[in-house]
Amino acid sequence: MIDRLLVIGVGLIGGSFALGLREAGQVGEVIGFDSDLQNLEKALSLGLIDRIATDLAKATADADLIFIAVPVGAMGSLIESLAHCWNSRATYTDAGSTKRDVLQALRHSFGEIPSNFIPGHPIAGSEDSGATAARTGLFDGRCVILTPEPQTAKAPLSCVEELWAQLGARVTRMSALTHDEILAATSHLPHVLSFVLCDLLGREDDERTLFAYAAGGLRDLTRIAGSDPRMWRDICLTNRDQLVPLIEQYRDALGAAAALMRSGDEEGLFGLFASARAARQRFTEQMGNKT
Amino acid sequence: MIDRLLVIGVGLIGGSFALGLREAGQVGEVIGFDSDLQNLEKALSLGLIDRIATDLAKATADADLIFIAVPVGAMGSLIESLAHCWNSRATYTDAGSTKRDVLQALRHSFGEIPSNFIPGHPIAGSEDSGATAARTGLFDGRCVILTPEPQTAKAPLSCVEELWAQLGARVTRMSALTHDEILAATSHLPHVLSFVLCDLLGREDDERTLFAYAAGGLRDLTRIAGSDPRMWRDICLTNRDQLVPLIEQYRDALGAAAALMRSGDEEGLFGLFASARAARQRFTEQMGNKT
Repeated sequence: MIDRLLVIGVGLIGGSFALGLREAGQVGEVIGFDSDLQNLEKALSLGLIDRIATDLAKATADADLIFIAVPVGAMGSLIESLAHCWNSRATYTDAGSTKRDVLQALRHSFGEIPSNFIPGHPIAGSEDSGATAARTGLFDGRCVILTPEPQTAKAPLSCVEELWAQLGARVTRMSALTHDEILAATSHLPHVLSFVLCDLLGREDDERTLFAYAAGGLRDLTRIAGSDPRMWRDICLTNRDQLVPLIEQYRDALGAAAALMRSGDEEGLFGLFASARAARQRFTEQMGNKT
Repeated sequence: MIDRLLVIGVGLIGGSFALGLREAGQVGEVIGFDSDLQNLEKALSLGLIDRIATDLAKATADADLIFIAVPVGAMGSLIESLAHCWNSRATYTDAGSTKRDVLQALRHSFGEIPSNFIPGHPIAGSEDSGATAARTGLFDGRCVILTPEPQTAKAPLSCVEELWAQLGARVTRMSALTHDEILAATSHLPHVLSFVLCDLLGREDDERTLFAYAAGGLRDLTRIAGSDPRMWRDICLTNRDQLVPLIEQYRDALGAAAALMRSGDEEGLFGLFASARAARQRFTEQMGNKT
């Protein structure tokens, strides 16, 4: 049970976290802090938070748990601000899409990683964002990755694990590097592929109508290209050491597929598609649902 | 109103066409022909067809409308078989995913394209296939492209257009080449991207767990990699003249995106993602639904 929760960045993730904990009876008061005052007022009117904090130092001093759900691009300067008013009795945790950069920002601001900061990432989201997108159940059945460091204190780590479990999430621990490698493959690469496809076809569609003749396949492949471009620019740049080599691997694989087509290699192309389908089947089994 | 409909290939498309026409009261008897007898018996038990034809010549002689919904790879040999028992009083139409190859097969078997053959392609589908996947409403609101040739007779063309309209489809006419160019972009390229992504991540997942940490983005991008690998091999090979240059264009665009990341070009990457999102918004407006 958390007496006072401070949510910094009351958007889809921050708002849904607050909403879920309240519904689970795990939180007393919820305070919201956000660089976007209009979004904060929306969050208040939607009941995601009980009150608005305008003074970050005062708000952190009073809080038991501080949940940081700001975009990757805003993380560095926020951590710098938090360092000036650090509450060593509170538990801090974040929801950043990349993790090595958060550790780096902490090291930059503190010299070392504070033992009461639990780096985390709930793998849940949507192409929608902001307080209005928040909903209960967002984390239900979803994976939450925590990337504690050797100096991370056990009590706040257990507390954060327990809270995520209350929201129905499956909590895993791994290193920040492993997290960033895995997410480059399962999330960042797919987003880049979708953005690039949508941009390419959008240009073609300017020349002549394409989209009018599209069906479900294209709709699926382009859905995440509706995501916030600023947020994804920051994620891609932050994790580019992992992402760029994967993009090159993908380009090579795509080139190999084109070569199979060019040479009319029926067996090779069938093998590729059949192996892809088998992987998709393993994937859906792990996802636990078919679509 | 069609007295007797012969469906050749009673799968997702053929079965849904028969089911839809029956529901619309547009058809008397439905006869099914399929290389897969087990599928045909399933179609009979599901009520997609009234009876099974085993003699193609006899079945075509009796039919008013012959709907060909076999995979692209089976089209050439089927057309050759049909040529030996051509019913010049009947209307023939097909649902092949590529159109120039159908015209080529007709030219090969007949010397010219028969005036009572209406080349068509309903842009509807699913990663599921076979008679059990058939359902009414599959074509509702979907686009159907017909690619008549100069010698195509007007009456059967109007008849086929009318039937598709009865199923709720939006019918458009264009040349076979234009069709194949558009579909390469809106359907074949997305499928190849999905297959290649799924194969690549499947290999990585063998090394270490990836899929367990994936979310909606990857699920969407890999859904169509669950499609039939044989069917898609044939589509890709049949339409490779249009598809391979597009794949190369996509690889270049992806390489340009990676270069923006490598050089840390924030503005360039934001511009790419923002333009992609704008295209996605235009696309969803044209699709008429948000997801």
